[in-house]
Amino acid sequence: MFFASDNATGAAPEVMAAIAEAEAGYAMPYGNDPLTERAQARVREVFEAPNAAVYFVATGTAANALALASHCPPWGTVFCHKGSHIEEDECAAPEFFTGGAKLTLLEGQDAKVSHDALQAAMASTARRGVHQVQGGAISVTQATEMGAAYSVEEVRALTSLARKARLPVHMDGTRLANVLARMNVTPAEMTWKSGVDVLCLGATKNGTMAAEAVILFDPERAWEFELRRKRGGHLFSKMRLLSAQMEAYLTDDLWLRLAAQSNGMADRLADGLRAAGVLIENQVGANMLFPRIRLDQHRRLQGAGARYYPWTDFDPDGPDDATVGIRLVTNFRTTEEEIDKFLDVLAA
Amino acid sequence: MFFASDNATGAAPEVMAAIAEAEAGYAMPYGNDPLTERAQARVREVFEAPNAAVYFVATGTAANALALASHCPPWGTVFCHKGSHIEEDECAAPEFFTGGAKLTLLEGQDAKVSHDALQAAMASTARRGVHQVQGGAISVTQATEMGAAYSVEEVRALTSLARKARLPVHMDGTRLANVLARMNVTPAEMTWKSGVDVLCLGATKNGTMAAEAVILFDPERAWEFELRRKRGGHLFSKMRLLSAQMEAYLTDDLWLRLAAQSNGMADRLADGLRAAGVLIENQVGANMLFPRIRLDQHRRLQGAGARYYPWTDFDPDGPDDATVGIRLVTNFRTTEEEIDKFLDVLAA
Amino acid sequence: MFFASDNATGAAPEVMAAIAEAEAGYAMPYGNDPLTERAQARVREVFEAPNAAVYFVATGTAANALALASHCPPWGTVFCHKGSHIEEDECAAPEFFTGGAKLTLLEGQDAKVSHDALQAAMASTARRGVHQVQGGAISVTQATEMGAAYSVEEVRALTSLARKARLPVHMDGTRLANVLARMNVTPAEMTWKSGVDVLCLGATKNGTMAAEAVILFDPERAWEFELRRKRGGHLFSKMRLLSAQMEAYLTDDLWLRLAAQSNGMADRLADGLRAAGVLIENQVGANMLFPRIRLDQHRRLQGAGARYYPWTDFDPDGPDDATVGIRLVTNFRTTEEEIDKFLDVLAA
Amino acid sequence: MFFASDNATGAAPEVMAAIAEAEAGYAMPYGNDPLTERAQARVREVFEAPNAAVYFVATGTAANALALASHCPPWGTVFCHKGSHIEEDECAAPEFFTGGAKLTLLEGQDAKVSHDALQAAMASTARRGVHQVQGGAISVTQATEMGAAYSVEEVRALTSLARKARLPVHMDGTRLANVLARMNVTPAEMTWKSGVDVLCLGATKNGTMAAEAVILFDPERAWEFELRRKRGGHLFSKMRLLSAQMEAYLTDDLWLRLAAQSNGMADRLADGLRAAGVLIENQVGANMLFPRIRLDQHRRLQGAGARYYPWTDFDPDGPDDATVGIRLVTNFRTTEEEIDKFLDVLAA
Repeated sequence: MFFASDNATGAAPEVMAAIAEAEAGYAMPYGNDPLTERAQARVREVFEAPNAAVYFVATGTAANALALASHCPPWGTVFCHKGSHIEEDECAAPEFFTGGAKLTLLEGQDAKVSHDALQAAMASTARRGVHQVQGGAISVTQATEMGAAYSVEEVRALTSLARKARLPVHMDGTRLANVLARMNVTPAEMTWKSGVDVLCLGATKNGTMAAEAVILFDPERAWEFELRRKRGGHLFSKMRLLSAQMEAYLTDDLWLRLAAQSNGMADRLADGLRAAGVLIENQVGANMLFPRIRLDQHRRLQGAGARYYPWTDFDPDGPDDATVGIRLVTNFRTTEEEIDKFLDVLAA
Repeated sequence: MFFASDNATGAAPEVMAAIAEAEAGYAMPYGNDPLTERAQARVREVFEAPNAAVYFVATGTAANALALASHCPPWGTVFCHKGSHIEEDECAAPEFFTGGAKLTLLEGQDAKVSHDALQAAMASTARRGVHQVQGGAISVTQATEMGAAYSVEEVRALTSLARKARLPVHMDGTRLANVLARMNVTPAEMTWKSGVDVLCLGATKNGTMAAEAVILFDPERAWEFELRRKRGGHLFSKMRLLSAQMEAYLTDDLWLRLAAQSNGMADRLADGLRAAGVLIENQVGANMLFPRIRLDQHRRLQGAGARYYPWTDFDPDGPDDATVGIRLVTNFRTTEEEIDKFLDVLAA
Repeated sequence: MFFASDNATGAAPEVMAAIAEAEAGYAMPYGNDPLTERAQARVREVFEAPNAAVYFVATGTAANALALASHCPPWGTVFCHKGSHIEEDECAAPEFFTGGAKLTLLEGQDAKVSHDALQAAMASTARRGVHQVQGGAISVTQATEMGAAYSVEEVRALTSLARKARLPVHMDGTRLANVLARMNVTPAEMTWKSGVDVLCLGATKNGTMAAEAVILFDPERAWEFELRRKRGGHLFSKMRLLSAQMEAYLTDDLWLRLAAQSNGMADRLADGLRAAGVLIENQVGANMLFPRIRLDQHRRLQGAGARYYPWTDFDPDGPDDATVGIRLVTNFRTTEEEIDKFLDVLAA
Repeated sequence: MFFASDNATGAAPEVMAAIAEAEAGYAMPYGNDPLTERAQARVREVFEAPNAAVYFVATGTAANALALASHCPPWGTVFCHKGSHIEEDECAAPEFFTGGAKLTLLEGQDAKVSHDALQAAMASTARRGVHQVQGGAISVTQATEMGAAYSVEEVRALTSLARKARLPVHMDGTRLANVLARMNVTPAEMTWKSGVDVLCLGATKNGTMAAEAVILFDPERAWEFELRRKRGGHLFSKMRLLSAQMEAYLTDDLWLRLAAQSNGMADRLADGLRAAGVLIENQVGANMLFPRIRLDQHRRLQGAGARYYPWTDFDPDGPDDATVGIRLVTNFRTTEEEIDKFLDVLAA
């Protein structure tokens, strides 16, 4: 019953096999190898973006920080949700990599940037002079930190604001696969066709060991990105071992199949919770649920060894019928048995 | 006949097996898992350093830059050899991570920092006031970029200068295993017992996929290091997959056995070259040779598919008896057959 | 009728005379001169802080950014009001000088940091791990950007939170003189005796040409500050010309007399406005008023050449009885005639 | 007998008068005032550069660091002389402002960048890949730290290398006035007409209190420069007080007259030294002499209160006929009496 995070499991067998195959023999280092070329081509194909510049790094924070630094100057601000990963969980990596830019924190339901909040913040910034930071970039997270998904229309509404202001759009796609697996939308439609300039395509939470792709749909800043990656310490000598992961991940829709598996388990869990009368507080757009349970349920689950994080403050010594908001994350290895046991403990 | 670098092969079978085993099941992310604890304990044991703070990252540049930033202030200078990796091959990562420190470049045979050069540079810096950068740290590379090894006595001569000036000593130990495998010296004697404060222990060139250890023998700056690692994007969620590599690498002397294998091949190659009348220009302290060969030899080797880098400028259309300095690096997978074939082609 | 800012006039005659005297003859550069020593001693005396380290710079942004960088690490956050100068008007200078720290923006009436907001934000930060920025520093502005003043008790309530968390307290004292001139409180009581660790003492808005003092009540970080000042380009060769300004400014209570003059004009203006039925929306703690006037009044004032900034959005073509919030700042050269003319135009 | 530096005196009477006049009345802050506009126009006129963007700052280090940061990316290197001010005397301000760029240190007689050294260094850098810093900018100092002057031809030889590599050229013109006053060359010929892209025009050492101009001959990076200046804390609220200095300085050739006065005193001193058999070791291109004197002469001069810096290491207890290299700097207030007294003491 492990629902603490989707970053706590291993890698898909196809990915492990690809690594094992790739590590044999010699290959030129730092990405100058055929496997890396192949994996980059695979990304371009999946995203229908033949001119995109594609790079692999090993952590989501590195991907985001390098992408933002390549698109937002030191005197710029990144418009993003106040609960976004780049604000809350990267220990100021964006500020470090950009050389001291700011993040402008926006409101919005389910950790989605609200169109009106963005518009207002951008309008306020647009009137600014030399004493204030300038508009730098817009960042959206798909799915959000609250497990919600932007529709294509919602993405476009935000990116059209960006385009009018000539600001680039960054998408933190840590759980993009989970979103796409729930929608009848192509990767291209959800990203560059909807105005996204640079995508951080997560994979580590959904089947790779440690591999993320940064996709610059406009390759103009590709060389700058490469230099930033190197001096950030993120250029791997044995790059092909990252490339092998990404190639396997994107082959035969593995990424979407893994995400669908994970989403399905989230749905099974959601159904069971709702049947038990539990309120799920977020729009479920990926593999994360934010239910509010009673303390007696929480205590039983903890006692039975269920792993998850409380999301709201609560008094551990409170009465049984007090409630606590919790976060439940499924992953591609979650089993029906885990789900059913969780629901049983909750109910009993 | 691949002698271009030791970063172009894969990982040792023991390391691959450890990864495969570690990836099963769940483990808390970001290093909060038993395997990481075990691997850290293994490092402390190997280095006889029970209080050391031990961290794993995936690239040598990350290890060096984070280690230096944790020990040298933005207004400091790192004394190092002018040909060191931190100066020549990291695209100013140390400058980036420190927030704008300098590197003071020193002379020295075989890329070893000369005691006299260090002493003179430190003396000059010690007289400085607010207009100049201050002494920040000393950095030595073991083995050096020219494949030479510092003796324990040489390390101590440098670190005693550092101690007098109260400056910390960083050792870039990318090929420390190769050095130790050639000497009757313990890891502790070569490092903290000789005055090294922070060691970047390379492993990726000698049997891991992508795993390096940073060892802070004085744990005082451990928390700072952790924060720098995180905001540098170098804190892996599936840390245990790095830890697994490092544990396997340091178990049953695997690291020293792999290095000895690699060194042995370098020796076989050196013997053959000398027998063929070729001058080897560096002190051979690890697994790298810098021979000077004739252009006709170079052309034959290239024609036969041998992979290595020229080290000196030369005229590709020059006469047969002109010479070129080349760099030959063996690795733990280099075979006797490769060596012998190389020597045959050279001779024929 | 110039009420746009207090940074738009010149320097007091005593200050100009001091510069003229100081510029004669030779003096060792970079502050190694007797006049600088004397001015530093004067600051220490005025603040009853014999051990304080005292430095002079030429702009308030430089003072704040250097002070914060010397007290908040790159992975820290500065707790401050969301409308503070360091957030709103320094183009991310704090982020630049600290190497990428954050600012945590707090609410509070009249741009004063609310005790409860600070307590809540600090509590939230205190539970953080390596993924989040750490508590770095607390910054308060005296008087605030809304012209209000913290009482000694209010300062102490905030600094006691800081002390519990072992965080340093920065005071942006751009208009500290105006506050002190209104209270029966000594400079020491308002600052270090109330828990302030580093004070940026403004002077440029109140009688000097371009001179601010940074006072480190705890001199432990003095040398770091000096190095940061130098590499920030803020160490003046002809430092004595700054020192002369500061010495004159602090001699015979000139600073308090100038501030009292400015405050008196603000009071006269406030009285007149209130008599005319105008609401003044801020607590008046210094020399700034935020009245809300009608558009017909605004139009008459503009027509008569009055200089001030609107503070709220408004429709320039709106009806006469619509209102606009404006900011009026007096300075040490403001005359009764200016005030009375302004009130006449408003009323007519 | 003050020859320690030209930054240790005050300001010319014309400059002081201009400040006194400018400080009266009100003016919009931050350079939005008519006087600043006039001073900028004056600079453009003197340099025959109608499109140049012109900014005023208060220190040479600020001018250099901001100019370099606006022209060299964080992953670039600035080619400069190893003894240049930006390397030796700015405590890594260029590294700080650029966000971690490098300086590539070049040899050259009298602290002039040697054409061959620059060519070799640039050629070496041009072959570099992602592992190394890229060519960023070329920086020359006019006059050099050794008091020598580049001829127009020498400047052009260097800038033509820059142009081929599409790298911008920065001139640190701290003592440009002294050079121009010795040559029959216009300011334009010495700078943009010879390929200089950005000039830091010193004035503080030659007659202003604290005012330097940064001239971007190509205004493309003007807005970036303004933002960097602001966030560096170098945008003065009472900008007109800097502008007034610069306008007066450039009016009626004051800057050249002051420099000529200073140069003339250096010549008188040089003549006297040579007549006394003293070797002057530098090419005298400005107002600085580097003579080598005997220890008995040094002792007499010190005893008589002469102020200057030794330039070479020497044993203070050495024999009378040992020698020491010293640096003598004249300034616009140096008198014939000072010179003659110095020569008398030396001779006696």
